[in-house]
Amino acid sequence: MPRLADQQKDFPQWYLDVIQQADMAEHADVKGCIIFKPYGYALWEAIQYDLNRRIKALGVQNCYFPLFIPESFMNKEKNHVKGFAPECAVVTHGGGKELTEKLYVRPTSETIMYPTFAKWIHSYRDLPLKINQWANVVRWEMRTRPFLRTLEFLWQEGHTAHATKEDADGMVNAALTMYSDFDREFLALPVLRGKKPDHEKFAGAHYTLTTEAFAKDGKAIQAGTSHNLGQGFSEAYDVKFLDEKGAQQRPWITSWGLSTRIIGTVIVVHGDEKGLRLPPTLAPTQIVVIPIYKTDAEKSSVLAACRDLEKSWSPTIRVKIDDRDEKSPGFKFNEWEVKGVPVRVEIGPKDLEKKQITVARRDTSEKSAMPIDAASASAMESLLKNIQETLYAQAKKHLDDHTKEASTMEDLARLIEEGNMVWVPWDGTVESANAVKDKTKATIRLLPEDDRPVTGKDPVSGKAGTVMALYAKAY
Amino acid sequence: MPRLADQQKDFPQWYLDVIQQADMAEHADVKGCIIFKPYGYALWEAIQYDLNRRIKALGVQNCYFPLFIPESFMNKEKNHVKGFAPECAVVTHGGGKELTEKLYVRPTSETIMYPTFAKWIHSYRDLPLKINQWANVVRWEMRTRPFLRTLEFLWQEGHTAHATKEDADGMVNAALTMYSDFDREFLALPVLRGKKPDHEKFAGAHYTLTTEAFAKDGKAIQAGTSHNLGQGFSEAYDVKFLDEKGAQQRPWITSWGLSTRIIGTVIVVHGDEKGLRLPPTLAPTQIVVIPIYKTDAEKSSVLAACRDLEKSWSPTIRVKIDDRDEKSPGFKFNEWEVKGVPVRVEIGPKDLEKKQITVARRDTSEKSAMPIDAASASAMESLLKNIQETLYAQAKKHLDDHTKEASTMEDLARLIEEGNMVWVPWDGTVESANAVKDKTKATIRLLPEDDRPVTGKDPVSGKAGTVMALYAKAY
Repeated sequence: MPRLADQQKDFPQWYLDVIQQADMAEHADVKGCIIFKPYGYALWEAIQYDLNRRIKALGVQNCYFPLFIPESFMNKEKNHVKGFAPECAVVTHGGGKELTEKLYVRPTSETIMYPTFAKWIHSYRDLPLKINQWANVVRWEMRTRPFLRTLEFLWQEGHTAHATKEDADGMVNAALTMYSDFDREFLALPVLRGKKPDHEKFAGAHYTLTTEAFAKDGKAIQAGTSHNLGQGFSEAYDVKFLDEKGAQQRPWITSWGLSTRIIGTVIVVHGDEKGLRLPPTLAPTQIVVIPIYKTDAEKSSVLAACRDLEKSWSPTIRVKIDDRDEKSPGFKFNEWEVKGVPVRVEIGPKDLEKKQITVARRDTSEKSAMPIDAASASAMESLLKNIQETLYAQAKKHLDDHTKEASTMEDLARLIEEGNMVWVPWDGTVESANAVKDKTKATIRLLPEDDRPVTGKDPVSGKAGTVMALYAKAY
Repeated sequence: MPRLADQQKDFPQWYLDVIQQADMAEHADVKGCIIFKPYGYALWEAIQYDLNRRIKALGVQNCYFPLFIPESFMNKEKNHVKGFAPECAVVTHGGGKELTEKLYVRPTSETIMYPTFAKWIHSYRDLPLKINQWANVVRWEMRTRPFLRTLEFLWQEGHTAHATKEDADGMVNAALTMYSDFDREFLALPVLRGKKPDHEKFAGAHYTLTTEAFAKDGKAIQAGTSHNLGQGFSEAYDVKFLDEKGAQQRPWITSWGLSTRIIGTVIVVHGDEKGLRLPPTLAPTQIVVIPIYKTDAEKSSVLAACRDLEKSWSPTIRVKIDDRDEKSPGFKFNEWEVKGVPVRVEIGPKDLEKKQITVARRDTSEKSAMPIDAASASAMESLLKNIQETLYAQAKKHLDDHTKEASTMEDLARLIEEGNMVWVPWDGTVESANAVKDKTKATIRLLPEDDRPVTGKDPVSGKAGTVMALYAKAY
């Protein structure tokens, strides 16, 4: 097996190597698209399954809207179409004929859903309306990277309508909390929560909340966003309702989404020099068992022991015995390490003699002997739980260690260059944010949700900061 | 609530009424597309969940390929492109520019998957290769009907490659058996299995197997197909492997799919004059509990009893209490009948006095009292199981009663007109099949899998029948 590029020296190549060697995805012949191979798609299936439960727990119902959006629908909300139309794939022919109206392949579904909301919503009794769909969307990206930025990607998009701004704010927050809980609990990903500055918000939104994870290479990465779309879309698509007093009102609308980019996020946050590291909750295989033998007699007794362990663990733990004869144990070790399986168990004739197994943890690379009698399902579950917590703690420490504060442009530039996220007083102007971007390539990832004290002047303009802004280079 | 059209007199309108009143779907503004509303989509989610387990049990792994297929890829297999190109939606512009090569929105994914198979398959050790994807596909249909025929639909498509024809035959059969088991066990749908005549097979296929269900209006409806694609696609896309002797071979390829059309099939097979009837395995709500009360005191004790029942049933049964104050019990009865919920439980003050509940079965319309003490979770599970079996038995009887045999054109035409499927000796020519179609609108749905005895002459040509053919009008 070829070696991975050095994670420290060439992170982008390391990233591509991990995806290829872990057999997660490959470039498709259609530029900018990827093929999700079974190992990569299994992660998305696990993510869907867990997140779907959380979405439903918020009282949201799944549905499905068409892939195609008539051009005239896109054009109704000006800021939205300005943001998305240039990125769209356009269908001009269907059934062998030129279409009288072009169809856009959805880059996101606000413009096709909200005309339907206008049909569904009449009275305050119809609110809140909460729906979600799992779908593919297309955005014509020039620079693509597997999972992180692709022309077609998979996601869920939640869309809700509410009677008041307060209710909509509550939903926007609930969705963001759902994402940060999911990130932490299921993906072992620590994230920062906050608000996007206006110049970085979703096209047409009132405001956008975001969760940002922090990659090993010192860049921030968006891990789920939630938008309060205000009443603009309601007006554009003529969604209205009669309130309890019989007065006509425009509902407040929200949308929120999480995409297959989260798989890339797991790679860049948890991955190490040996490849992917998967949190046990997410891992398709949680424990891989590698039998080690030379003779047929050894093979027989070792495999029997492997199967006994699999049997005792498998009701609750996802176990795989790698009994391929044509591959050496060393090859298997490498392969499962690259694939990020949380626990590797080795069993050879010497282990059997000593009535033990050898347990290697992917999170800490520790390898130790464990008496077979002690290797109960509950012991292995505890181990997996500990690995989950350790991965989270490692990523949290990395994030905390690289979240700094600066008051001068010099410090800001240096800290960004060194691979940090940096809190800086901001005067609230796009000009200052752009000046930082020009100098450091860092953008404002988020503004604080709470009233974080402003510690001084904007280092660009020298004017008083109105808010603290978290700058970072980003994916 | 408006009444449904009469199922006997206007089946097509009844079908549309059921979908609307059961709140399953509605027409989208994009012609030929539908919006899957939560109740309709919930059925698809349940279908996906159950069928996905069966697919994986066949050793098939899920993956995901791009939505867009370059035009040149489509053009490589002549019969296939002839079949599908006229139905395609074509993307000509992306990212604000005209594309140098047009992209087809996938009508099915053979042409984008098999060039990748060529990269994945080198040796007999790489076979069989078995993958599946859950995806949306687009076929430019002129006459559409919700679920049954839509421009965009959702489906799963399995694709496998094998070293030999025998292995491929085995897979084609295994997939068809999976569908017929799934139809029977999960959807309570009896189906006939068989082979499509060549002029009805999948574009580019060696042969096509099909499962056909039988609708209440006397038409056959395809409920899942499985194709042996032979080696034609392997040649067109240059898929090859070295066999155990080191000789170069072309793999045999299969594909098989089941789509959201199956939801329409459930409606037209199980639906009755009161609306949808859902098999308990599929039903999002298996038991709906309707509290009946007038005074606040009644409401309080009745609702308490409802909640006790929900609590005792809910771990294993999907129960819903319809406690809407603004709707009358009669309105609720109608609504849940239209929605096809298998069991309705009514509880009023008189029931409480008698320590009983009233149980209404959707399958037989029987209504009876049951002592509350006897209404255990296991008793209700038995009831649901019985409803599942009854729905299957009813549909099976309808199918059996309407499967006839004919030896003259006159009998064939009459039996078709009376809403039957009819076995007829066939001389094997497209001309004879077309003559029957012209006269009766019936087509050959399938040829027998076994060697069903040929009972005489083809009634069109008067030549000896070479095989029996099952003719029917079809969706």
